[in-house]
Amino acid sequence: MRNSSRGAVDPFIVMDVMEQARAAEAAGRHIIHMEVGQPSSPAPEGARKALAQAMESDALGYTVALGIPELRARIARLYGEWYDVDLNPNRVVVTPGSSGGFILAFSALFDAGDRVALGAPGYPSYRQILKALDLRPVEIQTAAENRYQLTPEDLAGVDYEGAMVASPSNPTGTMLGKPELAALVEAVQARGAAFLSDEIYHGIDYDKKPVTALQVSDDVCVINSFSKYFSMTGWRAGWLVVPEAQVRQVERLAQNLFICAPHASQVAALAAMDATEELQANLAVYAKNRTLMMEGLPKAGFDRIAPPDGAFYVYADVSHLTDDSRTFAAEILDKAGVAVTPGLDFDPARGAGTLRFSYARGTAEIEEGLTRLKAFMDSRA
Amino acid sequence: MRNSSRGAVDPFIVMDVMEQARAAEAAGRHIIHMEVGQPSSPAPEGARKALAQAMESDALGYTVALGIPELRARIARLYGEWYDVDLNPNRVVVTPGSSGGFILAFSALFDAGDRVALGAPGYPSYRQILKALDLRPVEIQTAAENRYQLTPEDLAGVDYEGAMVASPSNPTGTMLGKPELAALVEAVQARGAAFLSDEIYHGIDYDKKPVTALQVSDDVCVINSFSKYFSMTGWRAGWLVVPEAQVRQVERLAQNLFICAPHASQVAALAAMDATEELQANLAVYAKNRTLMMEGLPKAGFDRIAPPDGAFYVYADVSHLTDDSRTFAAEILDKAGVAVTPGLDFDPARGAGTLRFSYARGTAEIEEGLTRLKAFMDSRA
Repeated sequence: MRNSSRGAVDPFIVMDVMEQARAAEAAGRHIIHMEVGQPSSPAPEGARKALAQAMESDALGYTVALGIPELRARIARLYGEWYDVDLNPNRVVVTPGSSGGFILAFSALFDAGDRVALGAPGYPSYRQILKALDLRPVEIQTAAENRYQLTPEDLAGVDYEGAMVASPSNPTGTMLGKPELAALVEAVQARGAAFLSDEIYHGIDYDKKPVTALQVSDDVCVINSFSKYFSMTGWRAGWLVVPEAQVRQVERLAQNLFICAPHASQVAALAAMDATEELQANLAVYAKNRTLMMEGLPKAGFDRIAPPDGAFYVYADVSHLTDDSRTFAAEILDKAGVAVTPGLDFDPARGAGTLRFSYARGTAEIEEGLTRLKAFMDSRA
Repeated sequence: MRNSSRGAVDPFIVMDVMEQARAAEAAGRHIIHMEVGQPSSPAPEGARKALAQAMESDALGYTVALGIPELRARIARLYGEWYDVDLNPNRVVVTPGSSGGFILAFSALFDAGDRVALGAPGYPSYRQILKALDLRPVEIQTAAENRYQLTPEDLAGVDYEGAMVASPSNPTGTMLGKPELAALVEAVQARGAAFLSDEIYHGIDYDKKPVTALQVSDDVCVINSFSKYFSMTGWRAGWLVVPEAQVRQVERLAQNLFICAPHASQVAALAAMDATEELQANLAVYAKNRTLMMEGLPKAGFDRIAPPDGAFYVYADVSHLTDDSRTFAAEILDKAGVAVTPGLDFDPARGAGTLRFSYARGTAEIEEGLTRLKAFMDSRA
């Protein structure tokens, strides 16, 4: 039996936490889930109704590779609504989740051995997908004083063919402002490298609006998804926006790599985009949870946190409490009955001293989780 | 703007045919579709009902990366039902279509530059996916007297790290018998290369049953899908069977590359597997169409054909009629109003002299198509 070396990617550590949580629940314990990275809400009712109808009247065979034209047009319209950006629907590519978007974008842009600069902490699959495609992630330690976002200074002296940012970021929830984003795009383009912007948490924001890279330049690749704001994780539908001159290359790759994004999911996604009331109600829950977290975590002793601008995570520096976040997370699960994610998934270098808390679940669960965390930390002090 | 060289894959020529057919229909013409590679039937009724129910009661978030356990167990059971093979469900990996299965399998098995032997004619995306992953397809011209399937003799003297077969094959519909398949597996394993078997057309067979590579060896990678026999192309759900010792590597790759196959499609697929009556009715249509094709194509003058054991294609040698199958297909579309696929998609070397006819649509459409083809060829003689 053969195994490739590029396929030897790291496991998600959070999967171990989830398995431990599942085992605890199977043994009869009640666990609060602050480890999960997805909404507990289903796809909007309108989305589910649209699919139920389509299943009655349409064979739901392959769609064209770039996606259902109505959906591409609706996504383009979103850029007008959210950012006042006039976007040609021809530049929109519907993908099988943002995961499929990464595979497509990386394949279209980079050849084996090319280097892609990423800020750490960041979403672990960035580096694993790059590795699986024989590309080289160049992880750059971002600074707490930059709210864990890359800066042009961080990139100075680094060699790379592409650079990617995420704003709001997972795990920190911090955002890049327009001047900061523009400076990064300029620095990356100045060396002829590709700029990629992961905007999967757009729509889940609180005090200020996120900026899309398309407000700054047309020569960028934007990755987005219906998973988070549109509450459709399991449906595997997302999108790319690419420069017009790149559409044909991406289309050919999509034809061969995926044929198309799931047709049923595309039908549901199109309807989800008009379910504003339900989606804003979900957002109100996250906003309330966030307020509770910003009050409750410091009270429990987790006071070294970067206030999140968006997404549904709080990233906490716990290096004064532990030098082994994995064991610490296991202890929190065991003693407090709260599942949290060790930072090692997001930052192999510094993550032994950090934890990620998710507040994507219902408010009652968040309240109970905070109560338990405080009791646990009080007992530990 | 950057473009990678590995991303510069060939377009599907059939897409041009489909676009010409669409344009003809938009201009008011009635076109018979013998170019398509998918059933016209929807997912089975039971599958759609199961999903409609699940949408009422389940958030349909991410599933675990390897797929819903019940679905993996049901797929394993299929190997008992169809082949009398006792398969551990732990070896089954649910994938986003067979496309996702190829990406996973190739990434798990091969490193950049590795060579994968393939028979031509064959499904064009094999070589394009390999190219996009910086792997090297080694295309081997198969012989008409071997019914366009690879033999150990074809592989002698060829260097490769993996070899893949498809039985029934697209575009020919021919199958490998058990001794032929066993001889190939033995030859490939003798040099330490990986053996992959694309079994996507299993279930769509006529006079004899297809053989799975798992009847011959456990150290193989089998790719399959719910697209064809289960009539679920647009749902993007398929599966891999891998050796037990490879499951962990494939799982980690799946977590990072796809997170999971579409949850809704997995729910539908599980129910589809018990929709035997409806699926066998679909199969009866293909069987009737096949009989019509085997009678009607020779009468029309397309008499150099390999009788298909399975799938829903007939591959015709038309090298005595044309040396440019692309122009010939365009002429057939223009004059006969029948869309067919030039062989160049499947065999860059010899495909200028071949055509693929699909009989996946309804019987009335097949009858009309054969009538038109005969009239066209008579007028041409």
